[in-house]
Parts: sequence; C-alpha cells; structure tokens
Amino acid sequence: MPGNLFGQAFRVSTFGESHGPLVGAVVDGCPAGLELDLDFIQAQMSKRKPGQSRITTQRKEADEVQIVAGVYEGRTTGTPIAALIDNKDNRAKDYDHLKNAFRPSHADFTYQAKYGHRDHRGGGRGSARETAARVFAGAVAQLLLQKSGISVFAFVSQVGSLMCPRRYDELDLSRTFDHPTRCPDPATADEMMKMIEDVRKQGDTIGGVVTGVVRGCPAGLGEPVFDRLHADLGKAMLSINACKGFEIGSGFDGVRMRGSQHNDPFQNVGGRILTTTNNSGGIQGGISNGMDIYFRVAFKPVATLMKKQKSVNSSGQPCEVEGKGRHDPCVVPRAVAIVEGMAAITVADHLLRNRKSRL
Amino acid sequence: MPGNLFGQAFRVSTFGESHGPLVGAVVDGCPAGLELDLDFIQAQMSKRKPGQSRITTQRKEADEVQIVAGVYEGRTTGTPIAALIDNKDNRAKDYDHLKNAFRPSHADFTYQAKYGHRDHRGGGRGSARETAARVFAGAVAQLLLQKSGISVFAFVSQVGSLMCPRRYDELDLSRTFDHPTRCPDPATADEMMKMIEDVRKQGDTIGGVVTGVVRGCPAGLGEPVFDRLHADLGKAMLSINACKGFEIGSGFDGVRMRGSQHNDPFQNVGGRILTTTNNSGGIQGGISNGMDIYFRVAFKPVATLMKKQKSVNSSGQPCEVEGKGRHDPCVVPRAVAIVEGMAAITVADHLLRNRKSRL
Amino acid sequence: MPGNLFGQAFRVSTFGESHGPLVGAVVDGCPAGLELDLDFIQAQMSKRKPGQSRITTQRKEADEVQIVAGVYEGRTTGTPIAALIDNKDNRAKDYDHLKNAFRPSHADFTYQAKYGHRDHRGGGRGSARETAARVFAGAVAQLLLQKSGISVFAFVSQVGSLMCPRRYDELDLSRTFDHPTRCPDPATADEMMKMIEDVRKQGDTIGGVVTGVVRGCPAGLGEPVFDRLHADLGKAMLSINACKGFEIGSGFDGVRMRGSQHNDPFQNVGGRILTTTNNSGGIQGGISNGMDIYFRVAFKPVATLMKKQKSVNSSGQPCEVEGKGRHDPCVVPRAVAIVEGMAAITVADHLLRNRKSRL
Amino acid sequence: MPGNLFGQAFRVSTFGESHGPLVGAVVDGCPAGLELDLDFIQAQMSKRKPGQSRITTQRKEADEVQIVAGVYEGRTTGTPIAALIDNKDNRAKDYDHLKNAFRPSHADFTYQAKYGHRDHRGGGRGSARETAARVFAGAVAQLLLQKSGISVFAFVSQVGSLMCPRRYDELDLSRTFDHPTRCPDPATADEMMKMIEDVRKQGDTIGGVVTGVVRGCPAGLGEPVFDRLHADLGKAMLSINACKGFEIGSGFDGVRMRGSQHNDPFQNVGGRILTTTNNSGGIQGGISNGMDIYFRVAFKPVATLMKKQKSVNSSGQPCEVEGKGRHDPCVVPRAVAIVEGMAAITVADHLLRNRKSRL
Repeated sequence: MPGNLFGQAFRVSTFGESHGPLVGAVVDGCPAGLELDLDFIQAQMSKRKPGQSRITTQRKEADEVQIVAGVYEGRTTGTPIAALIDNKDNRAKDYDHLKNAFRPSHADFTYQAKYGHRDHRGGGRGSARETAARVFAGAVAQLLLQKSGISVFAFVSQVGSLMCPRRYDELDLSRTFDHPTRCPDPATADEMMKMIEDVRKQGDTIGGVVTGVVRGCPAGLGEPVFDRLHADLGKAMLSINACKGFEIGSGFDGVRMRGSQHNDPFQNVGGRILTTTNNSGGIQGGISNGMDIYFRVAFKPVATLMKKQKSVNSSGQPCEVEGKGRHDPCVVPRAVAIVEGMAAITVADHLLRNRKSRL
Repeated sequence: MPGNLFGQAFRVSTFGESHGPLVGAVVDGCPAGLELDLDFIQAQMSKRKPGQSRITTQRKEADEVQIVAGVYEGRTTGTPIAALIDNKDNRAKDYDHLKNAFRPSHADFTYQAKYGHRDHRGGGRGSARETAARVFAGAVAQLLLQKSGISVFAFVSQVGSLMCPRRYDELDLSRTFDHPTRCPDPATADEMMKMIEDVRKQGDTIGGVVTGVVRGCPAGLGEPVFDRLHADLGKAMLSINACKGFEIGSGFDGVRMRGSQHNDPFQNVGGRILTTTNNSGGIQGGISNGMDIYFRVAFKPVATLMKKQKSVNSSGQPCEVEGKGRHDPCVVPRAVAIVEGMAAITVADHLLRNRKSRL
Repeated sequence: MPGNLFGQAFRVSTFGESHGPLVGAVVDGCPAGLELDLDFIQAQMSKRKPGQSRITTQRKEADEVQIVAGVYEGRTTGTPIAALIDNKDNRAKDYDHLKNAFRPSHADFTYQAKYGHRDHRGGGRGSARETAARVFAGAVAQLLLQKSGISVFAFVSQVGSLMCPRRYDELDLSRTFDHPTRCPDPATADEMMKMIEDVRKQGDTIGGVVTGVVRGCPAGLGEPVFDRLHADLGKAMLSINACKGFEIGSGFDGVRMRGSQHNDPFQNVGGRILTTTNNSGGIQGGISNGMDIYFRVAFKPVATLMKKQKSVNSSGQPCEVEGKGRHDPCVVPRAVAIVEGMAAITVADHLLRNRKSRL
Repeated sequence: MPGNLFGQAFRVSTFGESHGPLVGAVVDGCPAGLELDLDFIQAQMSKRKPGQSRITTQRKEADEVQIVAGVYEGRTTGTPIAALIDNKDNRAKDYDHLKNAFRPSHADFTYQAKYGHRDHRGGGRGSARETAARVFAGAVAQLLLQKSGISVFAFVSQVGSLMCPRRYDELDLSRTFDHPTRCPDPATADEMMKMIEDVRKQGDTIGGVVTGVVRGCPAGLGEPVFDRLHADLGKAMLSINACKGFEIGSGFDGVRMRGSQHNDPFQNVGGRILTTTNNSGGIQGGISNGMDIYFRVAFKPVATLMKKQKSVNSSGQPCEVEGKGRHDPCVVPRAVAIVEGMAAITVADHLLRNRKSRL
C-alpha cells in the first residue's frame, strides 16, 4: 500500500524522481473558484529552488511550474489541479559510482531493501527534489488559507548549536527571505551564514531547526482522537527529508515544567476567549484554540558529504563513497519553504475537513 | 470528516467517553488465525489501568476486556475484532462544576468551540480513558508482531528535569514494569517517585518523557514519501493525550552534529548489512533499515490541578476552576503502555502494508 | 486490507457475527447537535428484524439498539456513535453439520478459502445478521438527511417474475410497510405473498427486486470522476447480501433507447432548473441534478434451502447439505430496510463531502 | 472531499480536462520490478482512442502515452507511475455556443450547480477524454495481473435491442477487436455496425451493453462486508461515463429463479473445488470462488446529438442546443477498453489488498 498521498479533504499527491524528466503534484479537493495567483506560486517555488546562494547546492533549476489541469480562466474548477516541474539540470553521471554503493544515512540502502529495483540517480524518489512538488501544493493551500485570513510562516531558528536568541513573536517574519540563511534575525543570520560556509568548505554538513508559525487559525480545527491537528502537523513535518523531530508549543522544554506554570489561563478579550500565555502552541486536545500555532522541526545534517566515507556496496563488500553531485551543506535554508508548504497543506486539509462538525 | 481511525492495513478505531457506559476498540485487518492470548492482553491493560500506585489517579477500573467479535475458538477470523471495556468507577458529579467552565490547557474549550455540544463529564472523549481502547488494540498488534519476531518496548526516561542517565541499550527493558514509575533504572526510578509524590502533595503536576524502542523490525517497512515509518510513528505518538513532542534517533540533538559525525556507516556482519552507529534511529528515507528503532516522546504536565486556577466559563465570564476528579500528577508512568501500544499498531500497519512492495 | 468501513465523511463500520454475542455499528462523522430520535431508530430496526410474518425467518430477535457512545443528553456530540445489538436467539447447534461442509452459493467456501479459519455458525460474518448494524447507521443517516429535507424510500417491486405494474411515482410509498411483502401496491402485494408462501412450503427460495427512491436531494451531490453519486449508491447496494445487480434511472432498459428519446430536456419551473423527464434517475455526470433519484436492486434467491443439495466438504469429499437453521424464503421483504439504510448512508456521506466544493 | 482516486492498494488517480493540454494518470502502489511493456500499453490505448472507424467520433488523437515517473530501465520502481497523454486535436471553438447552455442529460448543468465555475470546453472533466487515463492505468494493472495468471476481457454484447445470441463462454474473446463494433460474434457485429451507422446518419445515438470477464482469478479476493469484490467492480463500472447499470452472474435475470435452480453446486475436480454451474458469476459472499467472473454493464445512449434539442441556459432562459463537436453515436465500442481497464484495476487492487488475510 502506497504512501504518496497526504490529506483527506485537501489531498496532495506527488510523483517523479530527481533525475527523471520532471516532478509533479496533484492537488485534489481544492474548492472551485479560487484565483490561482501564479506570481505568488512562483515566488514560493523560488524560496526553495536550488542555486540561490553559495550555501545551497549549485544545481540550476528554474522550477517553473506548468499547471496542466484544474484551472480555467485563472480560477480553480474543483477538479484536480495538476502541475509539472521539469528537471533540467540533471547530471545523472554524477551518480554512476553510486549505482551499486550505499551512501551512509541516505535512503539508498533502504530503497534497495524495500523495492529491489531503484532509480539510484540523485537518490531517485528519495531526493529532496520531490519537495518542489510539495511547495507548489503548499502555495495553492496558502492561497486558499488567505481567503480565511490564515497565514503561514517559517524561518531558520537554529543551525548547529547556534540558536536564534529571539522567539518567533519578537521577530519580523516578513523579512525571513531577505537573507540566504532564512533567519529573520540579521545578526544571527550572519553568524549562521559563516558557520554553514565553514562547514561546506570542509566538505561536511550540519543540521538545523526550522520554526513554523500559523496565524489567524480559527478555534475548532483538528479531528480527535487520532487526527489531532498537531499530530497531522507532526506527520507532515516528519515526512520531509532529513527531519528527525517535531515539537509544538512548549515541546520538550515543557516536560520540565509544573502544571501550574505550564497551563494557559483563559481570558475574555473583547468577547473572544483567548489565553494569557501560549505554552499549548495554539492547540488543546488536538483542536486549535484560536491562538498562534507554533512548532519546531529538527533537521539532521545532510547525509551526502564531499569527503570519503566507509560503506558497503550492494554485494555487501566494503567500499568508499564520496559525493560528486551538487549538494546542500545545510538543509534548513531551503527547508523553510517546505515547512511553510506542508504546514499550509495540513491546515487547509483540516479547514476543509472541519466543515460541518456541527449541525 | 472524522478522525477516530488509525492505520490503513491494520486499522484501529475507538469509541466511547470517559463517563459513558464503556469505551471500545475495533481492530480491522488483523490476519486470520492469530491466537489471541487473553492473559497477555489483560497484562497490557494492567500496565495502563488507573489506581495502581500512589502516583496515579485513584479511579478504580478493572479494565477487563470483553471481546465480542472477530475471534472464534481463540483465534482471529480475519473479520473485525471488537472489544468493550466497561467504565465502572464513574463519578459524574465530580464534574458538575465544570459543565460550563473551561479548565486551562484542557480540551474543554476547544471541544465546545468545535462541536457546540459536548459531554463534559470527565473530559468526555478528550479524556485519557479513551487510551484504554488503544492499549487493547496495541496488544493485538504486539501479538501479531511477535509472529514476525518484532518486539516493542517503552519506558519513562525523564520526569521534569530528572533524566535517566543511561541509554535504552544500557538498560534491562524487561524490568520496566517492576517499578511504579516505569523507569527501568532503579536509582533514577526512586528519585522520580519522590519527585512525583512531592508534586502531587502540592496539588500540582509535572511532565516527562517516554522512550520507545522497536526491536527485530526487518528492513523495508515504511512508505515514502508521506507515510514514512517515523512520520507515522510521530503521528501515533502526537495523537496521545498531553504529547507535545516526538524525536527519532538523534532527534533535536542531532541538529548540532556534523554529517561526518552523524552518518551511520554501513558494515557487513555475517552477510547482513548493518550500521556501526545508529543516529538514524533505525529509519532512513522513511524506511526501516533493520537496526533498532528508538524515539522519545514528550508529555506536558497534566492540565487538571488540585488547586484553584483562573479561567472563564462558557458565557465568557471570569471564574475559578479546581480539579475534583481523580487525576494523575504525572502522565508518563501510565503513558508507557500507550506508547507501546501505539508503536505496535503503527509497525503492524506497516508490516501488513509492506506485503508486495515488489514482485 | 480490510473492508468493513463505508463512507468518507459519514463513516460507518460494523462488527460482529451471526452467533457471537452481538453485532455493532460505529458511525463516525455525524455532526454534533443532532437529536437522535430513538423511536424512529427502533422503528427502522423493526422493518428489518426477523420473525415478523410467516414469509420471514422465525429467528426471534428484538433488535433493541443500545447506544453506548457519541450521544449526550439525547443529542450527538460529534464523536463516534456506537450501538450494540444483542444476538439473543442463537441456535449454534443448527449449524454443527455445516462446520466442515460448504452450502452451495453461500459464503462458506469463500470465507474458508480466504481466511483459513472461520466462524461457521449462522454464516458468521457473512450472515445477513450483520445488516442489522447497517440499518441502525442508516437510521442515523436518515435523521441527518431530514434536517436537509431529504427523504429515502424503498419497496419491493418484483418477486420472481411478478412485477409491480406501477412505477414508484404512481405508488403511495408511505404504505410500504403496511404489508408483510413491503410492496405498496396492495393487489400485487397479495400475489407476492402467495408466491413466497408457495415457495417456502416447497423448501425453496426465490429472488426479487427492491426499488429505492431519494427525494429532496439538492443538485450538486456526487464527486467526479470515481465517486459519482450513483457509483457509490451502486457499491452500497451491491455490498448487501444476495445482491447481484443495480441500475439507476432507465438502467438496462435505457440501453434500447435512442438519445433523442432518452435525453431529459431542461426547463425552468419557477426559477428552478428541472427536467421534463427523468431517465437519468436524478444524476447526471455523477452529480445529483435535483430530481428524484431512483434505482433498482436485484436480489438472487436465498442460498440456504430446506431441502437436500449436493456439495463437498472441507476435505473435498462429496456430501449433502440441508438447511436446519431458520431462513428467509425470499430476501426482499427484509432487504427493503437495508436498501433504505444504505441509500441514506450514501447520500449523507455525499451531503457532508459536498460542503465546500466551491469558495 | 474529492473523488478522483480509485483503489486502496493499487491506487489510480486521474487529472486533466478534455480541452486542456493533456490528461494524466498516476498509479500508486504497483509493486516494483514489473516490466512495463510499452507496446502492450499502447495497444490498449488504441482500443479506446477515437477516430478509428466511421462509428466513432472523428476527433484525431494518437493517445501516445508518455511515462514520466516510477519506471527505471523499463521496470517499475515501486514509486508512483505517472503518465501524460497530450490533447492534440482540440477544437475549443466547437463549444463556444455551449458556454452558457446546458446540453440535456450531459454533465453541464450539474457541474455548474456543484462548482459554480467550470471548463465547458468538450465537457471539461466530465468528458470521456478522461477515460484515456484510466485505460493507461488499466493496462498497467493487466500487466500486473498477468504475473498471477489473471486475464481480463470485455466485449460488446448488445446495441439497442440487438443482443449477441451467444454467451461469453461460447465466443472467441481474442477476436473482439477484429471488428469496429468490438463484438466477437461476426454476424451480430455486422448487424450492430449497420444499426449504429443508421442511428448516426439520423444525428441520433443509441445505448448498449458491454460484458466483462475475468479469468484465472484465484479464490479469496474481495473484502467483506462493504468492499465485496463485485461491489467494487460495480462501482468501477458505474463510474464510467454514461453507465446506468451493472449486474454480475445471473444479475437481474436471477431474480426470477428459485434457489434450487440458481445455486451452484460444488464439486471436486482433481483436487480443486469448483462449481458445476456459475450463476454466482465467480463471487460468493463478496469473495471470488475461483470460477470465471462475468458481468454486464449498461450504457445509455450518448447525450450529445447532432440535432436540435430544447434546453435552458445558465440564466434559466429557454434555448436550443445542437452538438457541433465530434461525438460517438454509440459509446460501447470504445467503452470496451475502459471496462477492461477498470476491471483490471479493481482486481489488481484486491489482489494486492488480499496479501496477508491470514497468518
């Protein structure tokens, strides 16, 4: 049973490999009548696309989206929206040496174990190239959410041990994409930049954290008991390449707290019931409470190194592998757009699912 | 669109409220011919049931499982397995004062916002009572996994700021349930016990972390790109009451590492391809690689306090609420069985989904 | 992968065997706030329950529904509604001779082939007893549909070769349940009664047709391209025991027509767009058009006969089998309530799915 | 909630409109390692493609399939298989007069009612053009089924009132595609040809029946109680444009029979349990029994006529519409390939779902 579908009411599926002719996305369930702002969509694509600074892979892809279904005269028709994104800068030869060797901590071995037959070029379907399709679908979701006054943000809050000293609500999130690191705190951003460059020069890689924020989400989204809003957000994030952790609101730090410190008291603010603190991260009992939703997503260091590593080949013989393709030294700057996209898809799905929870 | 169903091939649904007549589970998709060891199932139920020590709620429930469908002559028939668990020790009156008041950081407000009409008694469907049904389903999953040599463990690795100093592979996980805290490290367990008792005496609560481990999982489970094994594990855990975070393998700590430290080199051990380290936590590219799967689950402090808290009522007026029911001062000792159960359900689902990933 | 779940937004699952302790239904996705009229529900149950006339099985079951979840103070809460229906008049011994023999055209052999281990008593899960749970769920769906002005009817339109000479719109469908045959045309009903009694006396069985009608359905329900409204109605009907055919509108007769005869011209009736004829059966392109939906469901003769039949046993040896249990000589009188129920479930599902097909 | 997905283990989704740039299919869940015989696939496409004889639409489409994902070195990789089929012979202008008018018995009105905004050109998503994508997916399914010795056939068995006098098992089904009518009985085929041509000359259309046959299906496929094999086959067929009825085995004729005539006695033939007759159509209790599966699918006359019809426009004013596009006078010759495809998809889905129904 396959796993290339996400969502129930706003359903996203993706297809395509890193070094095939294209990657694609199908968005099924988007209501009819939505104006698809192509400039906005392309701008979202650009936030993720490679080759934009010296701290990302030098693969050159325009990532131009071609919408081939579901839109008529600029507006959605309620039928599946399909988009194709060409793979132009393939260098399949860069991967010849990996046809029968497994890169440590990459998906090479597990795909081989599962499927027996795989497209090894660029990591095939396991490549981050697949996430371009997600960003397209996420952009459609964002346009839909805007109609309900919901907006989604993400930014880099940590690289290696270097953490942004300010919380999301102390930052100007509109400035995130002004800096190649995607950290909206300029001083921290510059330090991060330097750190990533250092790592890259050593042929090494480093991990990081992306913080996500959803604003304007009404109370009532999320479907107990299994499809809690934060459970689906967590799954969405953990399905992104290199993600190893997810926490919402107080997260792992909240573990250390007493209930009397952690609980978010309710208050009536002009007829709206709000909380005075927000350790819950905007979700209680799996259902949004109308406060900001915020969460942190942990990304491990990229597996492909520009240095020799010990491994084994598909015959089980010891070998050495070394990256020849073009790879990111740190995944988080490009992951920001993916986190935004997956968050938007998840919230859009729950927004549409939530219609009619009461008579 | 409802959210009370988990899994695709091994599908679990639950029903029932805290103070209704019973809670129930339906397990659909369990293969026929499995001997349902009732002693094992009841033992699992006992690990979660309330009233077992002075650090858990004093609600008295036998949590005896009555299997009413899907089993004939002690073995499964391939039809839905249904189980009922009576609610015996209801004290609905304990909740009268909460009919129109919202406990801070509980699901009272969000259920009201979503559904407009709710069963407030004991938190209704938002109560941890629902997890009894999950533990039943998890026990069935564990029996199924045993046939494939897969075993699932969980234990308390942190309470408040007190962390167990030893990793999962340095502990004797068969001893977890010897101690009321469910920590298999005796010295730490005693300290945790003391901490939880202190907190309870203050009418307060405290958070904690449960570590989960899956052993014997073959390489090849997990469905890219969205239904990655750890994404589904993450969703499973985040769907448990009070869970605020999930991390697999190196998790949030892995963020600080270089790729050259973090990568797990492959080696051939007697014809089996293994890794020398396991920062990946047994999953690469969303597919199990045959190593131990291990993960950490963060639980916030229980929301209901035995002390007064400021809040508002359903008319938006300020009020004070104070727990009168019987509540846990710390959720993690009882959460261990739930984490085990949900992990078993997730892996069983992927085990059955994985049939036929290749010709 | 299991198959005991129907619907996506209004989801029904059933569990339980003919000779287990009970059968049950879970309805997940019903909006909160719906008054559950227990008298109406029980009346629907009574339309299907056995032992009501000399042309149905003499098994005595009160079919009293016990609602154990999802309802508080008489109204739904948006959480799963679960109902249990006890099996009281079990006579498991009647089936001892069938433990290792396969009744022709029954599900005995195929369950054995599929599952290897089965509950043979009363046909186990393959028994029509399971449909009691569907009728409960269908009654909930009908209560929901009533809120939108939609009503569902079914009646017996054919037994053997004897067809009711009048179309559904020439009959008083409120009188269907006045007659044990469930045919609202009194003269035909009496003839049907006589025919079924004759067949029963011979220890034989006979087939029939149930016609279903949905009135008041708004234009716009149905989800192209696969989940067309009539495709889901067809699946719903074909999932009922003994069903061998389904046709909507003109159905198989429409095959003989020219397009110029068959097409339903549109007209404007007081601002509403209607059709002057209704060969389409109220659905065009898989979407309701606001006219009456009507369809016919073919049921084969009941497989269990009160006479000897040649068969083989589970060792593959020739044997003879003969019904000893209590069986219906003709399935359609009791199938009427099931057709009503499944139609209501299907339309309720599409009603809820249809929210938000446009901005 | 959208409806463009079919199947659970072998999942097919389609996208694209009649007069957009292309139609596409995604097949998710096909096991890895399957050789995708492109000649076979293209041959299946040709059975459906337009413009092949004077009794089909004169739209010229090569229907060349471009596979863009999921295949490496000629074999499937277990990742989603995506295929694109260009729309080349668009004549959008032929539909200008229908932008605001509703063709009787077409999907124009219901799409407008549901979505508010639609692509009217060629019927948009409601066009039979969408079925090209299904035939691709069906061809992949057939290749998969061949590995298990299962083959799927379909043929025209009736046009208008003209029925093929021979049953499926008296015909040489390998000759179906020798004749433009897709009827393997040469004498009947010639009569059908003449009838369709007569109808076409009159600017009219006519209905027909396609019979489907599945051979070599093992006992045990089908998932009680809702996802019975014939229920899913029925849904698959009813989801095809212009389909109004489905019957399996004895179908509506079986209604007239006594149980003693209708039941299929079991016999042991060389160690295999078979039935001596096959009124069941190869399925009992919703599960295949190993005999041939056969069924009949009713198609109404095509709605678009080459003559004037009365209708209303989107303002509710009376108007006349007349087909200007290129349309089929009878849908069944081209529907044969679609029935084959959808049957193959359904059986493939159940073949993969059935893995592991027992330990």
